Amino acid sequence: MIVALGGGTGAAKLLLGLCHVIDPADLTVIVNTGDDFSLHGLTICPDLDTTAYTLAGFADPERGWGIDGDTFSALSWLHRYGREAWFHLGDRDLATHLHRTALLREGQTLAEVTDRIARSLGVRARILPMTNEPVSTIVLTDRGPSALQEYLVRDGAQPAVRGVSFDGVDRSRPAPGVLEAIESCRGVILCPSNPIISIGPILSVPGIRDALRATEAPVVGVSPVVGGRALKGPTDKLLAGLGYDVSALSVARLYQDLLDLFIIDRHDAELVPAIEALPVRVRTTATVMGNLEAKISLAKETIAGLDSLRAS
Amino acid sequence: MIVALGGGTGAAKLLLGLCHVIDPADLTVIVNTGDDFSLHGLTICPDLDTTAYTLAGFADPERGWGIDGDTFSALSWLHRYGREAWFHLGDRDLATHLHRTALLREGQTLAEVTDRIARSLGVRARILPMTNEPVSTIVLTDRGPSALQEYLVRDGAQPAVRGVSFDGVDRSRPAPGVLEAIESCRGVILCPSNPIISIGPILSVPGIRDALRATEAPVVGVSPVVGGRALKGPTDKLLAGLGYDVSALSVARLYQDLLDLFIIDRHDAELVPAIEALPVRVRTTATVMGNLEAKISLAKETIAGLDSLRAS
Repeated sequence: MIVALGGGTGAAKLLLGLCHVIDPADLTVIVNTGDDFSLHGLTICPDLDTTAYTLAGFADPERGWGIDGDTFSALSWLHRYGREAWFHLGDRDLATHLHRTALLREGQTLAEVTDRIARSLGVRARILPMTNEPVSTIVLTDRGPSALQEYLVRDGAQPAVRGVSFDGVDRSRPAPGVLEAIESCRGVILCPSNPIISIGPILSVPGIRDALRATEAPVVGVSPVVGGRALKGPTDKLLAGLGYDVSALSVARLYQDLLDLFIIDRHDAELVPAIEALPVRVRTTATVMGNLEAKISLAKETIAGLDSLRAS
Repeated sequence: MIVALGGGTGAAKLLLGLCHVIDPADLTVIVNTGDDFSLHGLTICPDLDTTAYTLAGFADPERGWGIDGDTFSALSWLHRYGREAWFHLGDRDLATHLHRTALLREGQTLAEVTDRIARSLGVRARILPMTNEPVSTIVLTDRGPSALQEYLVRDGAQPAVRGVSFDGVDRSRPAPGVLEAIESCRGVILCPSNPIISIGPILSVPGIRDALRATEAPVVGVSPVVGGRALKGPTDKLLAGLGYDVSALSVARLYQDLLDLFIIDRHDAELVPAIEALPVRVRTTATVMGNLEAKISLAKETIAGLDSLRAS
């Protein structure tokens, strides 16, 4: 069993590659839920959905979010009614939110609902939310605090970032199966997701970071930063806003207590000595996943990294 | 001000005609809410929506329900998730249910929400739910009790009908403005809707039937039955199942304490003596509303009927 920790689109690319390299039934993905929020009375879980849609083969390959070929008729009418229309709710996607919200109201846990949605979509990997309890990633900006999706989508990641908090995380517990998976797996992958807002909330759920430190399984991270820029999303703005250098080295520092190996892009080879001095072992490869071939290739390299650690 | 009591598609046809004959701003429609039900966590009000969509010019002219040109992407994914898919929720239509459900949860009344939706759609007439309290029309069939939409749509009106009840109606109160509109208007129209399941619930809200009896305004009914058959929907099955003859005469009997005039189809002219013997005045005309011209024509005839009563 391989355990992967991930957020949205960056993680989903590597996970899709992994499903071509190992049996998806041997993959457990622990997903960030700090982005979850309520809109129009619906509980929306962007990272869980991106993960499920991607692993089911339904993801929109252009956008990286939502369902391929989805339409936006409901959204245009929500707009007509004067409702917030900045979050791009597709019509098919809406069915997921309706289904999830209805099941949660009936008393099912987020983990149960997530599993049910994934099975309905034909996902063979196991998708676990980091926690069943609500956690909200709040971005503190120069315009005040915003929920993460408000900052990212509504405000286009424009406001300057002063800090990030994960509201509710102190009271949260790892979802059933999360700690067991970390303890008993043959390897852990920290996907190339934003270390602050995607992997950060997962590591902040009490018990998860400790379990990653304690597990006998090797832990491999894949850098989401190449050549001083984030591959996707506002990682660079967030890192810079919080006072970090935007580099694979900064990411390695954030994970250094956990990592047995860090995979960085070969364009960042000059960072190898500094990362090794943390000390963290490094492997360089091509980490930009522009097509399926590149995703599979990075997945193979990641599994090879895990295997090399087990052999050593 | 003209007040019309109506249910779904039959009423909507006449109402559309009325809006070509009088200023829509002078029309108040009191709408049945006994069909309202919950599905996928949404509060769905079929008759309110049919009325609003029709008066806004958005109704699907073929089907009589829903929004013209609507798509059904969300529904197909709800079906994929194993959810009930018998109720034909269009994607645009879904926005209405989401908006209404969210506003109701925020504490607005159904009347407030209904007004807000109607204004957003550009409806100039005033649409009032019969009551703000939940009322459920239950059809007792040989297979047990069913909510009305389950009986009509899910079961295709196939089970034999033994009776009808309006759960919650005893505790309901007319929505604000309903009694005032009936008291102060210059005429009341009972639209050609099902007398049992569309007009019946409205008349069962405590105070509404009495207000119709007491108002000085003339009350005109339009028969939904022509030549022993219902123009639309399961009116004939319901009337027959409850032991009524399926005829304009049966409908006139159900309303006889209220009616100053009953408009029936000229094909039913042989029923005039029996209806007049109730005693209810009768006017015969063409009541089948196959196109907009016919709707306007029947609306003119209805207004002429009201005016004749006021003159007499």
